[in-house]
Amino acid sequence: MGKYLSNIPLQEGIEKYCKFLDINKVRDTEYIDVEKSLNRMSSEAIYANLSAPFYNCSAMDGIAVKAESTFLANEQNMITLEESKDYIVVDTGDPIPKEFDAVIMVEDLLEKEDNSVKIIKPAIPWQHIRCLGEDVVEKEMIIPSFHTIRPQDIGSMISGKIDKIQVFKEFKVGIIPTGTELIDRHETPKIGDIIEFNSRLFEGLILEYEAVPIIYPIVEDNYEKIKTSVLRALEECDMVLINAGSSQGREDFTYDIIEELGEVCIHGLAIKPGKPAILGKINNKAVVGIPGYPVSAWVVMENIVKPVIRKSIYKEVKEKEKIEATLSKRVMSTLKYEEFVRVKLGLINNKYVATPIKRGAGTITTLVNADGVIRISQNVEGINEGEKVDIELLKDISEINNTIISIGSHDIVMDIINDELIKESFGKVHLSSTHVGSFQGLLSIIKGESHIAPIHLFDVESETYNIPFINKYLEEDVALIKLVKRTQGIIVKKGNPLNIKSVNDLINVRYINRQKGSGTRILFDYLLKKNNINKDDINGYEREEFTHMSLAKAIENGDADCGLGVYSAAHIFDLDFIPICEEEYDLLLKKDMLNSKYINSLLSTINKESFINKVKSLGGYNLENMGEVVYIK
Amino acid sequence: MGKYLSNIPLQEGIEKYCKFLDINKVRDTEYIDVEKSLNRMSSEAIYANLSAPFYNCSAMDGIAVKAESTFLANEQNMITLEESKDYIVVDTGDPIPKEFDAVIMVEDLLEKEDNSVKIIKPAIPWQHIRCLGEDVVEKEMIIPSFHTIRPQDIGSMISGKIDKIQVFKEFKVGIIPTGTELIDRHETPKIGDIIEFNSRLFEGLILEYEAVPIIYPIVEDNYEKIKTSVLRALEECDMVLINAGSSQGREDFTYDIIEELGEVCIHGLAIKPGKPAILGKINNKAVVGIPGYPVSAWVVMENIVKPVIRKSIYKEVKEKEKIEATLSKRVMSTLKYEEFVRVKLGLINNKYVATPIKRGAGTITTLVNADGVIRISQNVEGINEGEKVDIELLKDISEINNTIISIGSHDIVMDIINDELIKESFGKVHLSSTHVGSFQGLLSIIKGESHIAPIHLFDVESETYNIPFINKYLEEDVALIKLVKRTQGIIVKKGNPLNIKSVNDLINVRYINRQKGSGTRILFDYLLKKNNINKDDINGYEREEFTHMSLAKAIENGDADCGLGVYSAAHIFDLDFIPICEEEYDLLLKKDMLNSKYINSLLSTINKESFINKVKSLGGYNLENMGEVVYIK
Repeated sequence: MGKYLSNIPLQEGIEKYCKFLDINKVRDTEYIDVEKSLNRMSSEAIYANLSAPFYNCSAMDGIAVKAESTFLANEQNMITLEESKDYIVVDTGDPIPKEFDAVIMVEDLLEKEDNSVKIIKPAIPWQHIRCLGEDVVEKEMIIPSFHTIRPQDIGSMISGKIDKIQVFKEFKVGIIPTGTELIDRHETPKIGDIIEFNSRLFEGLILEYEAVPIIYPIVEDNYEKIKTSVLRALEECDMVLINAGSSQGREDFTYDIIEELGEVCIHGLAIKPGKPAILGKINNKAVVGIPGYPVSAWVVMENIVKPVIRKSIYKEVKEKEKIEATLSKRVMSTLKYEEFVRVKLGLINNKYVATPIKRGAGTITTLVNADGVIRISQNVEGINEGEKVDIELLKDISEINNTIISIGSHDIVMDIINDELIKESFGKVHLSSTHVGSFQGLLSIIKGESHIAPIHLFDVESETYNIPFINKYLEEDVALIKLVKRTQGIIVKKGNPLNIKSVNDLINVRYINRQKGSGTRILFDYLLKKNNINKDDINGYEREEFTHMSLAKAIENGDADCGLGVYSAAHIFDLDFIPICEEEYDLLLKKDMLNSKYINSLLSTINKESFINKVKSLGGYNLENMGEVVYIK
Repeated sequence: MGKYLSNIPLQEGIEKYCKFLDINKVRDTEYIDVEKSLNRMSSEAIYANLSAPFYNCSAMDGIAVKAESTFLANEQNMITLEESKDYIVVDTGDPIPKEFDAVIMVEDLLEKEDNSVKIIKPAIPWQHIRCLGEDVVEKEMIIPSFHTIRPQDIGSMISGKIDKIQVFKEFKVGIIPTGTELIDRHETPKIGDIIEFNSRLFEGLILEYEAVPIIYPIVEDNYEKIKTSVLRALEECDMVLINAGSSQGREDFTYDIIEELGEVCIHGLAIKPGKPAILGKINNKAVVGIPGYPVSAWVVMENIVKPVIRKSIYKEVKEKEKIEATLSKRVMSTLKYEEFVRVKLGLINNKYVATPIKRGAGTITTLVNADGVIRISQNVEGINEGEKVDIELLKDISEINNTIISIGSHDIVMDIINDELIKESFGKVHLSSTHVGSFQGLLSIIKGESHIAPIHLFDVESETYNIPFINKYLEEDVALIKLVKRTQGIIVKKGNPLNIKSVNDLINVRYINRQKGSGTRILFDYLLKKNNINKDDINGYEREEFTHMSLAKAIENGDADCGLGVYSAAHIFDLDFIPICEEEYDLLLKKDMLNSKYINSLLSTINKESFINKVKSLGGYNLENMGEVVYIK
């Protein structure tokens, strides 16, 4: 087992590790064909083998002459030159025979006949001739050493008759996935298995760092087997990554293996996620133990493995593209770690707004969905709502600029709108949906975090939707666009084995609820009250899911017997559905958004036949008045 | 023959051509393995096949319990749980059996014995459990359509049990090199041949644009043969480039072939270089005729082919990285064209200075050596010295920041310094030499264009070097660092066939001169005067070369019989040498540069053994006092 983890600040850790690795050393070289050298780095200066051009040639279409024979020509004294004797015809690029030393352009020739021309201007020696070596002289340096080869460099080398060049060998990084629970992605997963995918995440990142990844087979949690794999990888690679087993659990062997075969420099960095990284070396090669959770692993790859690889191949770590954004919610942090917080970004009223998303280290999809990352320094306890923050981008800024930000209630229709928007715009316009429930959606409009908020807020007193909430909570000028009416009901197992018929049947079964502030939760509370049911009598009232999809999946899986949700979610998982009511699922937005490019493309999309057909095929939706502005305040 | 060339402004031309091509169309798709999908673009939304996690699992090391069985535990009432009956031990990630619904962390277990534990706090249902679908729920969208796949996307898809995904097919671009004078780079070139290299320049650029290049064999200038090659390429590719034959010469067939098989949209753009481009289509595929000169070709690739490809694959053209710089010399331009002027850049006194370099379209090495490009708008007649200009970078700005700028006299020693600097710094520090002669070098120090100026200016009156010129021309505080003493002499053919012994023998032979303002030219004029020779009696006095290397190469090639130059150049080309005098080749610099990082690394390099040995091996140098500051003003 490794000793107790240290907590070394990131920058200090990288510097210490690079020094420990003695990273600036001359690497092995190889000769490769010049055609294959794009993006490779020259390890020695490259000198031309041939001048370019390698003979004197014409720079123009015209005739090659002996300049001396033209010296007497002037406006008063036209000179006649005879072909073969006094000149030859040359096109651009044609060689100039030794006996000639100038070219007269075709435009300057008078009375051109079959075998003679007349001129009225003398030729200056060497005019219109591209002299031997004009571009490059044989034995001159074309490319210096330590130069990353670009397309024009290849052109220039070929022109200089270079065949093979000496370059640094590719930097190979071995990836060893370890864990008894891991299975290859082609196997059929059983309960308890984890499909191994970090190696492919690493592979892609290492290619981005301009090194060559080599993935080794999955190794179970067995000291000797892991050690054997590490030794093999060390023979074939310049650096080895072991994933996971980098912490101090009973089956974490990475620390001890590195210590047995080499030396550990650092075990534990002051970063979150990613703390239990192990930075070591064996046979002067970097060996890094990387934590298993994908987001932790990603943080270690981007912040430690990347600079080590880039320095090893003599390249800079390019600063990530950054923007400044306003934080929409407070983010807490600890003084113990530098934290990496994933955010969604939106361009709202010409300023970027950053909304933090889930911080769990186990959720790879947060890296897919995040637009950027905030780095919160170790000496900061958190960042307040409304503060400006620097965001390292994970997506092109143009994508963010063309994304409609939706915060509020979840419905599958929003995903369909997104897909349709993308397809119509050939990937230029997106809809980003964050599912926080209707009431948080309404607040997001107040706070200027979103362009639209999908809401379905049931007002108990008036027994109507949305408008009473707008009037009660909003001082802003807003508008409400009708999206769909949708059927809410009780989702139950296929065949309805518990024979649930109404809300009154929800006692003594395993219920699964939606989160506080969601429209469905408000509706459920209303239904309980109306039917005089105490929420304490609902088994599972506290268990909250954030989407209709995850609720339906839990029921399909048998983790719960029933829950309130929309028809479309039940339909997707082939579950039974007891309709309760039809509700108004509308889009709330600031009034001045109505003519924005975002709302225009959204309205244009939902009016299209293809969208309407897709929504109809889901079932449970009523599309009456869709896209109409139903309320303005 | 094509009709008379048009002169359409670039931006207008691109827009017209994209419209003509109807470029926004849905492209063909294919299914590929998710592992191979990095940087490919999804053509449909991708939905999870499996939830992640796909079973409820422990988020902590601890025990899985039935929450109900813990409800009575409190500080006063410790509860004992028995293994197997009340709990099982779980590690992080272990599945939670159906009968349990909460995890208690190992840290919260008291009096842990072999088969039982005690607790004093009830477990909340579903605490410390990563529920099924926490990361992604089966059938939820993971990746939208038109999304370029990143490493984290691959991880996420594998986690969602995606096997193959639908992506747009790669965009294939055929490259057809045409020209009877072209030979493959592996052939031995004869006079009149041109080694074909543009196809490799295009190949690299097309890869940068994220398309797939396919190079077809060289085709001679024959209408039918080129047509056959174009038809074949059209079958296999999405776009075809024909290089060259895009102008209106007698062997330029591209226009007529496109018109026969399809339609030409534009022939001739208002750009320089690059004007005679042909933009057409055949069978709805883009076919572009590209001019033959490499710099013209590069301008057409970067400014027309690139946006067409990027739009076709639904991607943005990223703005090139730009900096603002001060122009060190006036640049003329015509109102007829938008001009692309290559420049060298230097960071001098904390501001970037841009110095234009050769503008010939035939010199691929200018693209290698240039640090950036100025685009001069069509409506601008030129840019004055001292004006600020935007520069599109061709190199990393960090390389420019760490480059010592040398402008002045040429000597091979400067190339060696560069190579040594690069090697010692692992590619971080460079020396950029521009060869304009000693006097222009001196002026470059006055104008703040360079860090150092290598000079060897012979003062006729005092018969000493450099210092008289400094005192006469410079008001600035400058310093002079001794570099080398070098031997100047007459370079002649091996064996000295004309038996040249002194300057007096230079009459009636073919001389080759150096450019005005070069130290060697000043020396030669002095030698003529001293020997009472009239320059009109020197055959070839007007023929100017810019470097010792190109002068020596011209003599080796028999284009001239002799010229004045340094021993090392004669030595490299195995020519004979008649020594004339030893001259002082020194480095001029502003005094406040003496302690700069640039001069420090330069001085450290020239004091190294490896540098000294390389210079000695060239011959003709005297290294006495090298690196000493010999004069301060």
